[in-house]
Amino acid sequence: MKLLEQAIMERGRVIGSDILLVDTFLNHQVDVFLMQEIGKEFAAHFKKNQIDRVATIESSGIAPAAFAALFLEAPLVIMKKQASRILTGDLLAATVRSFTKGTQYELTVKRDFLPKGERVLFVDDFLASGEAAIGAKKLIDSAGAVLAGVGIVIEKSFQSGPERLREEGIELYSLARIASMQEGQILFH
Amino acid sequence: MKLLEQAIMERGRVIGSDILLVDTFLNHQVDVFLMQEIGKEFAAHFKKNQIDRVATIESSGIAPAAFAALFLEAPLVIMKKQASRILTGDLLAATVRSFTKGTQYELTVKRDFLPKGERVLFVDDFLASGEAAIGAKKLIDSAGAVLAGVGIVIEKSFQSGPERLREEGIELYSLARIASMQEGQILFH
Repeated sequence: MKLLEQAIMERGRVIGSDILLVDTFLNHQVDVFLMQEIGKEFAAHFKKNQIDRVATIESSGIAPAAFAALFLEAPLVIMKKQASRILTGDLLAATVRSFTKGTQYELTVKRDFLPKGERVLFVDDFLASGEAAIGAKKLIDSAGAVLAGVGIVIEKSFQSGPERLREEGIELYSLARIASMQEGQILFH
Repeated sequence: MKLLEQAIMERGRVIGSDILLVDTFLNHQVDVFLMQEIGKEFAAHFKKNQIDRVATIESSGIAPAAFAALFLEAPLVIMKKQASRILTGDLLAATVRSFTKGTQYELTVKRDFLPKGERVLFVDDFLASGEAAIGAKKLIDSAGAVLAGVGIVIEKSFQSGPERLREEGIELYSLARIASMQEGQILFH
């Protein structure tokens, strides 16, 4: 998606060789017009997958996912991050490890909000190691719903996430695919 | 706002005398069409206030605030919740206490994302004790920006927040104003 690649080049900042800071337009200050276009693009691509609902993880995924849900005419479900596993009967949970931060959290969702048999599009801001997306798939699977696709705003293709998702047979569509970020230079696929 | 009051009556649930659960359409499962209408309503009301940007707090405020920003043609800024105060030079912070949960967090925002002199509309899902809105005002003030209004989806008028905001001279616009929730019965103003 040209508009997004342009935003990354003009408003993003590379730190080291694997951190991309996009807090000027995606996850702290948010360009809502760009989010609307992103939502349209996800909806256009995944319309064929007969999506019943969109799921994302708080909080950076919410803005792009909300617009995707709007254009797919579907409800949105926000999966929550919790520091520890405090489970009540109606809550599903999966442990997600963050390799870059060296932390982990419990990804949770109310079972009622992933109805059995429904086709779910998972949307997130970044795909790196794929831990979050795999965690989301676990929740969707254990609810008896179907992960019908994963839509990613920015994919770091040089990390393991894209390959892991393909191995799981998940349809992945990333709007910007970064091949490398060596020496502060961003190369797209 | 009739559509919102209807959603609260039909899809909300009262727990005890002061907790309103709206996770079926506002803060876990999200009705994005209702969020779009909420955004339109905030934009129509606050257009006269010459809003330069919209601010909210992660993560339940993001969906309604994103649509308000879209219709006001303004960028959105997401203030972050942190467990502890780890401050870098470019970060502003204010402590926010949650009376209901007995916890506190640091509300933070990058100074750059609240430019001096800009007129900011703060949008949030709930107004109860007003702690979050007062914390947001502190950040906006210390950045040298101007809090030009507060837009709330659901106000608990029987708690102290509305009065506290009025005392601070803040223009408050709440889309649903709950007068009481005695015995599971929701009464609107």
